[in-house]
Amino acid sequence: MTETTAVPQTTAGATATEAGAAPQDVTAAAHAIADRARAASRRLARANRAWKDRALLEIAESLVAKRDVVIAANRQDVEAGRRNGTSAALLDRLGLDAGRIDGLAAALRNLASLPDPVGKVERGQTLPNGLRLRQVHVPMGVVAAIYEARPNVTVDIAGLALKSGNAVILRGGSAAAGTNAALIGIIRDALDRVGLPADAVQTVDEYGREGAGVLMQARGRVDVLIPRGGRDLIQTVVNNAKVPVIETGEGNVHIFLVKSAGEEMAVDILPNAKTQRPSVCNTVETLLVHSEAQAAPAVLAALAAAGVRLHVDGRVAALLPEGAGGEPATDEDWGREYMDLDLAVGMVDSIDEAVTHIHRWTTGHTEAIITNDLANAEKFIAEIDSAAVVVNASTRFTDGGELGLGAEVGISTQKMHARGPMGLQELTTTKWIVQGDGQIRS
Amino acid sequence: MTETTAVPQTTAGATATEAGAAPQDVTAAAHAIADRARAASRRLARANRAWKDRALLEIAESLVAKRDVVIAANRQDVEAGRRNGTSAALLDRLGLDAGRIDGLAAALRNLASLPDPVGKVERGQTLPNGLRLRQVHVPMGVVAAIYEARPNVTVDIAGLALKSGNAVILRGGSAAAGTNAALIGIIRDALDRVGLPADAVQTVDEYGREGAGVLMQARGRVDVLIPRGGRDLIQTVVNNAKVPVIETGEGNVHIFLVKSAGEEMAVDILPNAKTQRPSVCNTVETLLVHSEAQAAPAVLAALAAAGVRLHVDGRVAALLPEGAGGEPATDEDWGREYMDLDLAVGMVDSIDEAVTHIHRWTTGHTEAIITNDLANAEKFIAEIDSAAVVVNASTRFTDGGELGLGAEVGISTQKMHARGPMGLQELTTTKWIVQGDGQIRS
Repeated sequence: MTETTAVPQTTAGATATEAGAAPQDVTAAAHAIADRARAASRRLARANRAWKDRALLEIAESLVAKRDVVIAANRQDVEAGRRNGTSAALLDRLGLDAGRIDGLAAALRNLASLPDPVGKVERGQTLPNGLRLRQVHVPMGVVAAIYEARPNVTVDIAGLALKSGNAVILRGGSAAAGTNAALIGIIRDALDRVGLPADAVQTVDEYGREGAGVLMQARGRVDVLIPRGGRDLIQTVVNNAKVPVIETGEGNVHIFLVKSAGEEMAVDILPNAKTQRPSVCNTVETLLVHSEAQAAPAVLAALAAAGVRLHVDGRVAALLPEGAGGEPATDEDWGREYMDLDLAVGMVDSIDEAVTHIHRWTTGHTEAIITNDLANAEKFIAEIDSAAVVVNASTRFTDGGELGLGAEVGISTQKMHARGPMGLQELTTTKWIVQGDGQIRS
Repeated sequence: MTETTAVPQTTAGATATEAGAAPQDVTAAAHAIADRARAASRRLARANRAWKDRALLEIAESLVAKRDVVIAANRQDVEAGRRNGTSAALLDRLGLDAGRIDGLAAALRNLASLPDPVGKVERGQTLPNGLRLRQVHVPMGVVAAIYEARPNVTVDIAGLALKSGNAVILRGGSAAAGTNAALIGIIRDALDRVGLPADAVQTVDEYGREGAGVLMQARGRVDVLIPRGGRDLIQTVVNNAKVPVIETGEGNVHIFLVKSAGEEMAVDILPNAKTQRPSVCNTVETLLVHSEAQAAPAVLAALAAAGVRLHVDGRVAALLPEGAGGEPATDEDWGREYMDLDLAVGMVDSIDEAVTHIHRWTTGHTEAIITNDLANAEKFIAEIDSAAVVVNASTRFTDGGELGLGAEVGISTQKMHARGPMGLQELTTTKWIVQGDGQIRS
């Protein structure tokens, strides 16, 4: 689950860049980094799983052994942030302690335990003319990542790229530059010790937002660019990039409570979907209740009891229990990803009205229906055009780990290449291998 | 096989646009078209295969029945082109006669005979907590296509989009506008007759290059944009689009003739790969010969005998047979997609040198090796990073039809989403469907 935040401006602004041209020396330096990444990617693409796993375990061990170095660098970043007036929430994301570093090492060991996505044969056949054909997964090549001041992402993305045979160029938020430099140094040393190219993991942090800008424009040098962070960061990248981008993470998630929905299930699911981890993208942001849904008052009471601030339309207001608060909902509420203990609640008179509302406001991440009616369930599945459509379960399951992908790169909200939770396979492309014995085309 | 051309300027210029903003009324009109396409796509996404196939057959029948209307419109476009000094090659691509129209109808009937890519379950499982999970292919939604003055593409793309459940917005070269209007009218009437939305097939032709520009910027309204045509058209789209693009078609294709290559096989493959259809993207453009390749003189003689103009480096020149011509090759030759009866020929002293040359100059489309040495074959397959890697066969097989995909949208030279020949499945995305009975996340 990629955690994103509703208040990323201070770091997003620091990592993103406008489309303006970078100075020539920055362009040349970033291109040189990309060219070294390309050379490293060619060596990494030929490394077998055992070798890549050895590197992941070596990095994990080294991170634990050098915890103090990382923590010292991180303390400087955090102190600088505090002096600059960075919010407590952002400082929390920036901070690393021994427990968090052990968590990063554990995630790398988990990556080592997963199957290699490279070499998997997607499909194949022998053609009538005797040509043997197979479509095989191969690494993308050079992956770039632009993200915020969250140093855990540095280790996370480097590990995912390595396991999938890709070289990676990182650009983290400036506020974490010291921590990232320490982490990247440890990773590169570990790669070198196991005989893999250190240049498989590089950073353009020293070139600031201009470096990020060069990456976004480096068509042919960067095969795919993954922005990870809040809405502003992702939109800046999507709007300025000329290299292929995978857009991740924005989730204006809906749950529709139909007439037939059982009260017990609804009272379980709604608070879970809203409060279990409010700051992430698969958290529900709008509840639509059918005007005849019997379960609605109990659900609203359960949400209020869980501390959820309800933003409601006029008809929902009449259902609120005593003392549940409830501000009037506006269009801004329907369009908003709160990422906090807020929830917009609206009433509809039919499933068609619910589908129309969702089509208008959704970001295409996850929508759920709570129903005991088969026709409603089938209609919702067929008509909702989002990466994940959930029936009678919490929206919090739209997550690579929960859906059995083993590891997660992010949650794609676009339709090209990857949609929904992206696992290691989504960091690969394919190659057609055609073997013959002299066939020509007639 | 998507045919592209080395001289597309006159039509590419007419279809492409610079990034400048379109007038407000054009923007509004093109957005309205996209919004109608979205509504139509929602209906089309729910149409089953039988219904879509009925539409394809109805369009095929109608095209044949109304051949005279199409030919009359086409004659006006061709005459206008002739008055404007359009080249004979471009006029040939623009022209439609009864035979070509019958060919288009036959291609639609073939599409109707192919399996539906929509609804295919990509993967699925029941999770330990009882959630039933499946990842299902669904249409992209709204596909846009920008192409040159080749009216056959209008019918081709409309059919592919329809079969894969997508609405399509077309922008063909202005020189074919009259023909395209006639074809689109026939298609829309046929859709209407079978009860599918006519707005599943629309055009922005009347808004010229400004309309094309709006499509390229319409993020959220257009799910994927496919440029089809020559290099200039594709680069203009890739550089200006903010919607996801699938880059197709450019092929600077190499064949490497190693020391061990058998003369008979090499003498068969090379002329086939160069002369069987020189104007298409899977035609070989550079031959690299190993300095000890015994077969080289016979291959060069066979190419010269087939009328191929050879552009050679100094060492190759010494191998040329009497009267074979042979101009000195420059860097421009190594980088060039001739799409004509020209071939660059260079000599290398090792497979590593060949791989390095290919990495430097390739567009990543198709490369082939001719060899009887297993280690060389394996090394070439592992180290060449192109959409298709061919051993001992003609490069002309990189084609959706030849590789058994049934129909071809284009040949992708990018790594995201689709790589190499794209079939109907590549016009779909996927949706995760998660069904539970009250599961919440702990």
